[in-house]
Amino acid sequence: MADCIFCKIVKGEIPSTRIYEDQFILAFLDIMPASKGHCLIMPKNHYETFTEIPENELCDLIAVTQKISKAMSSALGNKGYNILINNDKTAGQLIPHAHMHIIPRFKGDRIRLSWSHRRYRGKELEDTKEKIVKFL
Amino acid sequence: MADCIFCKIVKGEIPSTRIYEDQFILAFLDIMPASKGHCLIMPKNHYETFTEIPENELCDLIAVTQKISKAMSSALGNKGYNILINNDKTAGQLIPHAHMHIIPRFKGDRIRLSWSHRRYRGKELEDTKEKIVKFL
Repeated sequence: MADCIFCKIVKGEIPSTRIYEDQFILAFLDIMPASKGHCLIMPKNHYETFTEIPENELCDLIAVTQKISKAMSSALGNKGYNILINNDKTAGQLIPHAHMHIIPRFKGDRIRLSWSHRRYRGKELEDTKEKIVKFL
Repeated sequence: MADCIFCKIVKGEIPSTRIYEDQFILAFLDIMPASKGHCLIMPKNHYETFTEIPENELCDLIAVTQKISKAMSSALGNKGYNILINNDKTAGQLIPHAHMHIIPRFKGDRIRLSWSHRRYRGKELEDTKEKIVKFL
């Protein structure tokens, strides 16, 4: 898409520190990382969110993500990492071109990806299940 | 694995609120969710972390994850959601049986999955790239 920053990076119109590239996928280092090695992996084709990625590209994307996470651990010595997809701006997606984060984790990195735990009340758990299952 | 909680859930030895199941994948609602509908998706086979999941099961897993996230949005009205994999206990993985979270997002849910931004200094960005690329 003409005014998409990530499409411009894909085309090389904006520079990036590429670590992996094939016909469908591009991965580069985030220049303002949560931790050293934090990278973004995305389909080269423009899809606004994860929801829109077709299944064949989704498979490529997750396989490449696993491959990079292994390489990263070998290179940087981190055993732990987080993979995160923020789908839609209401979930923290900043650039509307679907992408995944790999965030390598190191001792004392102060990264917190956690949440408060809610509790379902009464029939709410079963009701929520029924609602979702109707669409599956 | 005999003493794995998620293997016991897969076998039905521990109850769960299942929303999806096929030959290889199981998904159920987290009973202490970050938000209503928060679910866990996992391979039925025991792999300790995401790193160990074979490519064919990885494909199934991400395809099912997308399918469930769409159903969830239709059912609960959330446009946004986060998909999160914590790989290894150093990254917040609590149960050593690989799984993915889908966390639906709602206005005012107070969930924060963000981080402070570091900056690479000098040649550190290029050096980090070189280190990773060696293993790809």
